[in-house]
Amino acid sequence: MSREAAAPAFVRAPVDRAAARRTDAEWLRRCWASGAVRLIGFDGEAALLTEADDTLALLPLTPAHDLPPDAVLLGEADGRAVFAADLAGAAPADALRRDLRSLAAEGRLAAADLGLLAAARSLLQWHARHRFCANCGSPSAAMDGGWRRVCPACSASHFPRTDAVAIVAVKHEGRLLLARQPHFPPGMYSALAGFIEPGETIEAAAEREIFEEAGVRLRNVRYRSSQPWPFPSSLMIGLIADAVDDALTVDRSELEDARWFTRDECAAMLAGVHPHGLKAPMPLAIANHLMRDALAEDD
Amino acid sequence: MSREAAAPAFVRAPVDRAAARRTDAEWLRRCWASGAVRLIGFDGEAALLTEADDTLALLPLTPAHDLPPDAVLLGEADGRAVFAADLAGAAPADALRRDLRSLAAEGRLAAADLGLLAAARSLLQWHARHRFCANCGSPSAAMDGGWRRVCPACSASHFPRTDAVAIVAVKHEGRLLLARQPHFPPGMYSALAGFIEPGETIEAAAEREIFEEAGVRLRNVRYRSSQPWPFPSSLMIGLIADAVDDALTVDRSELEDARWFTRDECAAMLAGVHPHGLKAPMPLAIANHLMRDALAEDD
Repeated sequence: MSREAAAPAFVRAPVDRAAARRTDAEWLRRCWASGAVRLIGFDGEAALLTEADDTLALLPLTPAHDLPPDAVLLGEADGRAVFAADLAGAAPADALRRDLRSLAAEGRLAAADLGLLAAARSLLQWHARHRFCANCGSPSAAMDGGWRRVCPACSASHFPRTDAVAIVAVKHEGRLLLARQPHFPPGMYSALAGFIEPGETIEAAAEREIFEEAGVRLRNVRYRSSQPWPFPSSLMIGLIADAVDDALTVDRSELEDARWFTRDECAAMLAGVHPHGLKAPMPLAIANHLMRDALAEDD
Repeated sequence: MSREAAAPAFVRAPVDRAAARRTDAEWLRRCWASGAVRLIGFDGEAALLTEADDTLALLPLTPAHDLPPDAVLLGEADGRAVFAADLAGAAPADALRRDLRSLAAEGRLAAADLGLLAAARSLLQWHARHRFCANCGSPSAAMDGGWRRVCPACSASHFPRTDAVAIVAVKHEGRLLLARQPHFPPGMYSALAGFIEPGETIEAAAEREIFEEAGVRLRNVRYRSSQPWPFPSSLMIGLIADAVDDALTVDRSELEDARWFTRDECAAMLAGVHPHGLKAPMPLAIANHLMRDALAEDD
């Protein structure tokens, strides 16, 4: 485990979120109209980028027309307000349209910009999928710099979602439990994960998920780190836990396979040199770091 | 800190959530029709209870008519399926209608039943406020034992929310930072808290919230415990952190007051013997336990 992994993606967004500005509609309009803002453009789920030499960068966009109703104030950085908007048809024709997963995998975009894109993608996708009031069915309107939608008919307020996920590196006598979902790339195994449900603690959700999917009971569930995962708006809560025993009952409707991997196998998977081509998730994913952290506990 | 506090409320719900049963509509119908289920009744936000001698209990309800469309399968316990439903007008006339906060404060209901009520309340309130598809505005229909709503018009699926909240016991040289919101009971001070936003780690959200509300920078943010808080569906993520310094800039639009409390003052507030009548939150709230845990670090 001596090789240092790159940091997980999306965890850095060095912007002052400026929550107090969000509710100041007049400030938002003036700020936008001044043109002295940084604008992050999307076309649906894709970020709009430009390429120069060997690096990628956010497009240097200038606000056009009025403040779009679903534009989001991400915050302030370097003395400028940072907005994000879905430009769709108004996107520059020469812009690259890029998916955030592949951007994170490539590592050609600054980590801070990747963090901004993550917040932007979650919020813009939330607006795209929440144009109507869930309480009464009327069209709702974005407010507060894109951090709230309000229904003019029933006055209900709706806020962006974050969906908390428990992801667990399960250990038993130095081995790690890893699993494959059917849609994973060939040979890739990862830590098990599932959404935390209403009425559950983080630890209870971890215990339920791992028992449902692998038939394994946990003890000593311990928090390690977290990561926003903007597909569309998960909050990955990274845990390490010990298995009570190593008997597996794999739920084949959820998992293609689940098994215990020795420390040496895990190290080979993380280093990309497993003799059978098995792979760990890339360092952009918290699962990669949880595997390293779980193994490092025994160093 | 020697006095043992009661456990926080809502953290125990010893039911097998039986996620695999949820999607089996025929099993759900047969199970309900058999009458051999445990049914937890609500009337809107209020749980339906019965009182005998000095204890409270869930009503012994019998399923009537067909499976209500918004009934929720909470899981299986003691060989029986456990459902929750809003009975509204069909609620027994002699049922007590009780709010979960006061139930948790009283401690006359079994902790396990309180945990079931928490999950039930979050889910039933989610149905009550999400009868329409946020994507297209059409009426949506409950599916999967109440764990999903599907839109017949646009086919969008919608899942129950959990809203992750960072709640932080901030320390500086043995003192704790506590604050009052205007709606708190007289004299009560608590740990600062705020919703985790899309694109944030747990730690970044804690840092942002404490800086926004109190002007304090954090270091060494550490996870401690979590608690579901069903008003309507928060997941409280309890943290302890150290303040870089003790200068406060309190946001008076959010907080009535915020200040540093010595270890002795905190102990007096937790024990209910503060000379000026100041109080800590009750043990039902994770904030009470975070205060104890933060002080116990220095024992």
